[in-house]
Amino acid sequence: MKAYRNLSKEELLSLKARLEKEFEEAKGKGLKLDMSRGKPSVAQLDMGMDIFDVLNSGSGMTSLEGVDVRNYGVLDGLTEAKHMMADIMGVSAENVIVYGNASLNIMYDAVSSAMTHGVMGCTPWCKLDKVKFLCPAPGYDRHFSITQHFGIEMITVPMTPQGPDMDMVEKLVAEDASIKGIWCVPKYSNPQGYTYSDRTVRRFANLKPAAKDFRIFWDNAYSVHHLYDEEERQDKILEILSECEKAGNPDMVYEFASTSKISFSGAGVAAIASSKKNLDCIRKTLTIQTIGYDKINQLRHVRYFKDFDGIKAHMRKHAALMRPKFEAVLKVLERELSGTGIGEWTRPNGGYFISFEAMEGCAKAIVGKCKEAGVTLTGAGATYPYGEDPRDSNIRIAPTYPAPEELALATDIFVLCVKLAAVEKLLEQVWGIAA
Amino acid sequence: MKAYRNLSKEELLSLKARLEKEFEEAKGKGLKLDMSRGKPSVAQLDMGMDIFDVLNSGSGMTSLEGVDVRNYGVLDGLTEAKHMMADIMGVSAENVIVYGNASLNIMYDAVSSAMTHGVMGCTPWCKLDKVKFLCPAPGYDRHFSITQHFGIEMITVPMTPQGPDMDMVEKLVAEDASIKGIWCVPKYSNPQGYTYSDRTVRRFANLKPAAKDFRIFWDNAYSVHHLYDEEERQDKILEILSECEKAGNPDMVYEFASTSKISFSGAGVAAIASSKKNLDCIRKTLTIQTIGYDKINQLRHVRYFKDFDGIKAHMRKHAALMRPKFEAVLKVLERELSGTGIGEWTRPNGGYFISFEAMEGCAKAIVGKCKEAGVTLTGAGATYPYGEDPRDSNIRIAPTYPAPEELALATDIFVLCVKLAAVEKLLEQVWGIAA
Repeated sequence: MKAYRNLSKEELLSLKARLEKEFEEAKGKGLKLDMSRGKPSVAQLDMGMDIFDVLNSGSGMTSLEGVDVRNYGVLDGLTEAKHMMADIMGVSAENVIVYGNASLNIMYDAVSSAMTHGVMGCTPWCKLDKVKFLCPAPGYDRHFSITQHFGIEMITVPMTPQGPDMDMVEKLVAEDASIKGIWCVPKYSNPQGYTYSDRTVRRFANLKPAAKDFRIFWDNAYSVHHLYDEEERQDKILEILSECEKAGNPDMVYEFASTSKISFSGAGVAAIASSKKNLDCIRKTLTIQTIGYDKINQLRHVRYFKDFDGIKAHMRKHAALMRPKFEAVLKVLERELSGTGIGEWTRPNGGYFISFEAMEGCAKAIVGKCKEAGVTLTGAGATYPYGEDPRDSNIRIAPTYPAPEELALATDIFVLCVKLAAVEKLLEQVWGIAA
Repeated sequence: MKAYRNLSKEELLSLKARLEKEFEEAKGKGLKLDMSRGKPSVAQLDMGMDIFDVLNSGSGMTSLEGVDVRNYGVLDGLTEAKHMMADIMGVSAENVIVYGNASLNIMYDAVSSAMTHGVMGCTPWCKLDKVKFLCPAPGYDRHFSITQHFGIEMITVPMTPQGPDMDMVEKLVAEDASIKGIWCVPKYSNPQGYTYSDRTVRRFANLKPAAKDFRIFWDNAYSVHHLYDEEERQDKILEILSECEKAGNPDMVYEFASTSKISFSGAGVAAIASSKKNLDCIRKTLTIQTIGYDKINQLRHVRYFKDFDGIKAHMRKHAALMRPKFEAVLKVLERELSGTGIGEWTRPNGGYFISFEAMEGCAKAIVGKCKEAGVTLTGAGATYPYGEDPRDSNIRIAPTYPAPEELALATDIFVLCVKLAAVEKLLEQVWGIAA
């Protein structure tokens, strides 16, 4: 396909006319499609329904260690649930605390508690003049919302296929003691689906932060969320806790995970993994904060999945549903946009998203046009701190929820809008013709 | 029975010898009994097991409003769960947000968020020189732990059978703008089982706090937890939200409740009730804090209990199990201690506790002696801010968990220790004979 940059004014104008006609037709269809949220599909959820037969009125309700899971007691999670979550993160069970249903809530609590009580004996962040976080971007909007909520200054760090720009990360954390954390989705990153390289993980583990209370917020949300069954198409990542320990930085990481996209979104089990020292601090606060989390749901999950092989088998079934969806989107992008120079996109081996880079200054226009034609996308800018994409080019595509036929339709409209926005931008930029 | 105060030195000494002998015999039995925690008994928990048959692999998983409860979405609770929790609190569903498994966590979050972000636009408490809470005491230790954790100064307010000393409450909140809250368990209070009188509730609703961001933390933990089926033996309480609205103080209350002692402890559903303005503020934070709470468990509870009558019927079954336990304890106390002048106790119509007032300066000794003889009680002092009972006299008795026969044994040992501690105290105080 010819690069749009090389089209003449006349070619652009006639292309514009054609695309506008197609756009009007698309609008006329009155579609209502949604590629905005990383939600499991109904078929994925249906796949896990047997979990509700695992506990019934005749079930033993005692944990392996003899705890009646229906009563008070056990602050930091059933031992068997710790093992389950440890396996998911590739860590040891003694490094795990199991929480309620949402890992986001654990991250929020970690920041909130650092604000009011400080990290491991350091000054509470609310007593400091300035607290900053590094935010690899494009990244996960809900991470950025937490730090913004607490008035923490966010510094954007560019993402690469190997992970965040580590030269910048190393330099900044070494120089600036007000930098207290960094948000990471290290495996199948949101939104790119990138997995941090071994070198990146080792550089993280070997950071020399000026702040003693600097923590890496390692949101391992997609650790077992492969799209392909073949080993060689499954991304691997170095285990960060042990790397940090080797590097003499044992307390530098809070790792998070949940079964929200394994069992059920919002009704799963979430966990933190960290050093014993960090966990001891967290437990002190937990004692005040809660009487403990839902142990019945923890037991239900353990009895259903049985072991890590059970989880992997379950995730292969998810993959079988999700793979064709990702491939459907990628096929349309490839067919319609390759060679045009008006968009680039990622081809992930796992996770929940595809990241799309439009021509600079086009993302908002594309998302707006899609909406007009009945296709909802994540808001442009959402993948950057403060919701502001400096190049206005990144769009997160979430292909997991819609049915395959809807997805094909939605992607057709998406590429149409990408083209239209590009043509308008070029006419304006190169030829001074306003849309 | 003769009042201990009127015993002669010789009578005291011979009584002491007899009690010490009994005490040695008791110790010899090697008992291991626990009256320390307000935990439901196994029989109570067994009673609710059918809830696990309510949702199974064949169940519809859609809420009344068409929400797939297995997926993301719905931040503040299913509408039917709001109704369930509203009925428990006697409020309107539109005044309710449904949370996860623990109302304590909601209270913690309310204080934490007031610290970092302030209440409804007021200055965050962490920016103030001084923040104080009123703590009616004896009260619930976990309330006091939250305020202590956040460095909030706690002021003890005496409790009466009608509720807190309202003269003192009115005066203090009107005079001191640094007083930002008060902890209340208004019905079947922990530990007395007192229920605030209508006059007390109205005086609460009509408070004129100097601080605009003063909030009543109304922990309605035992609203349906009656011990008796007869209407006239069930305590009633005025509904505080509507009283506050009538009094022109619509935003002054955060009310909390949960099903922890209705369904399962730690695996139930918790909720807050408050004014629309307060809830709107809370929702703004919730959006950042979580992806929502466990809607599957909300649906499970609603489908199991069906309606408020279902809950009341369930609680009558609980009462049938608990009533004989309370009565067993009260019978021993009455038989062994009435007329002795060495102890007073409450006779609640509901809730989870009996409050015992020993002779001044005896509570720690009694709890210590009980422990020696194999009976665990809540630590002396726990019912006061900072764990310090100024008179060292209050002991919380939790009769719900042990089996009836254990309970009779445990109470026998308790009264023995009460007597022994009293005799020792009198010998020391009146006759100068050290124990």
